[in-house]
Amino acid sequence: MTRTQTTKAMADTVTIDQRLLVWAERVEKALDAALPLPDAEPARLHQAMRYSTLNGGKRVRPALIYATGELLGIAPTELDASAAAIEMIHVYSLVHDDLPAMDDDEFRRGRLTCHRQYDEATAILAGDALQVLAFQTLAEGPGSAEQKLAMIQILARASGTAGMAGGQAVDLAAAGRVLTLIELEEMHKAKTGALLQASVLLPAAKAEVDASLRGCLARFGQALGLAFQIVDDLLDIEGDPALLGKATGMDQARGKPTYPAIVGVPAARLKAQELHTLALQELSAFGAQADPLRALAHFLTNRNA
Amino acid sequence: MTRTQTTKAMADTVTIDQRLLVWAERVEKALDAALPLPDAEPARLHQAMRYSTLNGGKRVRPALIYATGELLGIAPTELDASAAAIEMIHVYSLVHDDLPAMDDDEFRRGRLTCHRQYDEATAILAGDALQVLAFQTLAEGPGSAEQKLAMIQILARASGTAGMAGGQAVDLAAAGRVLTLIELEEMHKAKTGALLQASVLLPAAKAEVDASLRGCLARFGQALGLAFQIVDDLLDIEGDPALLGKATGMDQARGKPTYPAIVGVPAARLKAQELHTLALQELSAFGAQADPLRALAHFLTNRNA
Repeated sequence: MTRTQTTKAMADTVTIDQRLLVWAERVEKALDAALPLPDAEPARLHQAMRYSTLNGGKRVRPALIYATGELLGIAPTELDASAAAIEMIHVYSLVHDDLPAMDDDEFRRGRLTCHRQYDEATAILAGDALQVLAFQTLAEGPGSAEQKLAMIQILARASGTAGMAGGQAVDLAAAGRVLTLIELEEMHKAKTGALLQASVLLPAAKAEVDASLRGCLARFGQALGLAFQIVDDLLDIEGDPALLGKATGMDQARGKPTYPAIVGVPAARLKAQELHTLALQELSAFGAQADPLRALAHFLTNRNA
Repeated sequence: MTRTQTTKAMADTVTIDQRLLVWAERVEKALDAALPLPDAEPARLHQAMRYSTLNGGKRVRPALIYATGELLGIAPTELDASAAAIEMIHVYSLVHDDLPAMDDDEFRRGRLTCHRQYDEATAILAGDALQVLAFQTLAEGPGSAEQKLAMIQILARASGTAGMAGGQAVDLAAAGRVLTLIELEEMHKAKTGALLQASVLLPAAKAEVDASLRGCLARFGQALGLAFQIVDDLLDIEGDPALLGKATGMDQARGKPTYPAIVGVPAARLKAQELHTLALQELSAFGAQADPLRALAHFLTNRNA
């Protein structure tokens, strides 16, 4: 066995858990470097941004970025800015969603939410500043002007009224109301799915892939995004609060529309697995270089936290 | 007199009030076109974004963009996206600053504030969505990829922790505390000045001007930005609530640090005029093509609303 073969064999034995740890460490460093220093003024704002961001979340979106990068042959160093940017958008949305006027959550990832640890005004501003820092980080990251502009457009569309912010608005309006399955799917696709899909589209834009490959990744990202959210809904019913780092049963308590609430737990589980299969089909044309992304898709639809 | 001379003579007689009206109409149309439709879902969010944006504010930042465009020979059509984008950032900051956890304002521009007209959650989301739409609008506007990327960087830096959001954090932290004049100026430069300065730097990036000219415009924008905020502080003491469309005396009632509170009203007036003079000096190398920008600077430091 040559040295190259040995290295390859070793790479193949790397589990998804190990990969997730490596990716999480990468994006943690990138976030730390991109965030303003905690002792520079306005220090309280900077500290709130860092408190909410640098706390070891699952880093699902960065993991999707790096795994898609492996599929496309993009070095992780080329993707650190995108990974940090998309995580900033995700964190800002959590900080704002947790506010008293929204979900009024006390804990997040096992710690006090931003407005509980600091105050509401600081949490609003920290979210605002994280959102704009995401775009600044993308704009100042590696890549040609065309590539970066394409990535900024992807992230903006996924975050705005046609994506995450719009989905959150539908979610708020839906509390206590019965949604149809189609309405619920549209809401999930916008609120959670758009940003997960953007996580595979950002490396595609960086690599300037053709329309056919972009289409495969877009459909993979959309199916996986919906599966991820259904699993999230299921975990709120069946999950372990200690593993999740937050209380369960909150969706039902708040009258939030969820997949299992509409179709029942068994059908919701089945739907998540069907979407997982659909997602994998989009990767069928690829060989071993898609294995990290396949393993990640499996992990995300079979997670317990 | 030739036709060209006649047209020029006519153009020279256009007052700044007339120009402001034309520019305001331009940006109103650009905003209307860029904002999501009011009857598309999520309709309440879209309506809140439109309610807060399409209400005939002074449009100071778009006016600075168009006036700088006249100086640099850029057609207004080339600047509509920038004008809409910077106004969206300004409006989002007003929507969030008005929230109960921040300034808790009931009226803005003579109408109910966004969270009063709708609700707090919708106002938070409307602000979030306006911020991201600003970057999307710039990214999808006219210009080369390099020009648009440069504009996105300018707008991001002016809006983030080193600019507007950071200045608002300092402002909140300063309530009830005595600031030094230097601290106050730094706060004003960040909170209001950065976005006003960005308004002259955006057309400069679009025109790819050299460093020397960019320096003149940067210093012009910074001096005018501070003058504008001092006049704002003065209007809160001496202004007419009917003309302003909001209550006066609020800074003092809230213990907010202001220029006149530290140095007194006469010294604050003098400072605004000094800054106005400084700003004009930066335009001294230019001929008649800088007249709209000069007239706008005069208007902004001598306004009564």
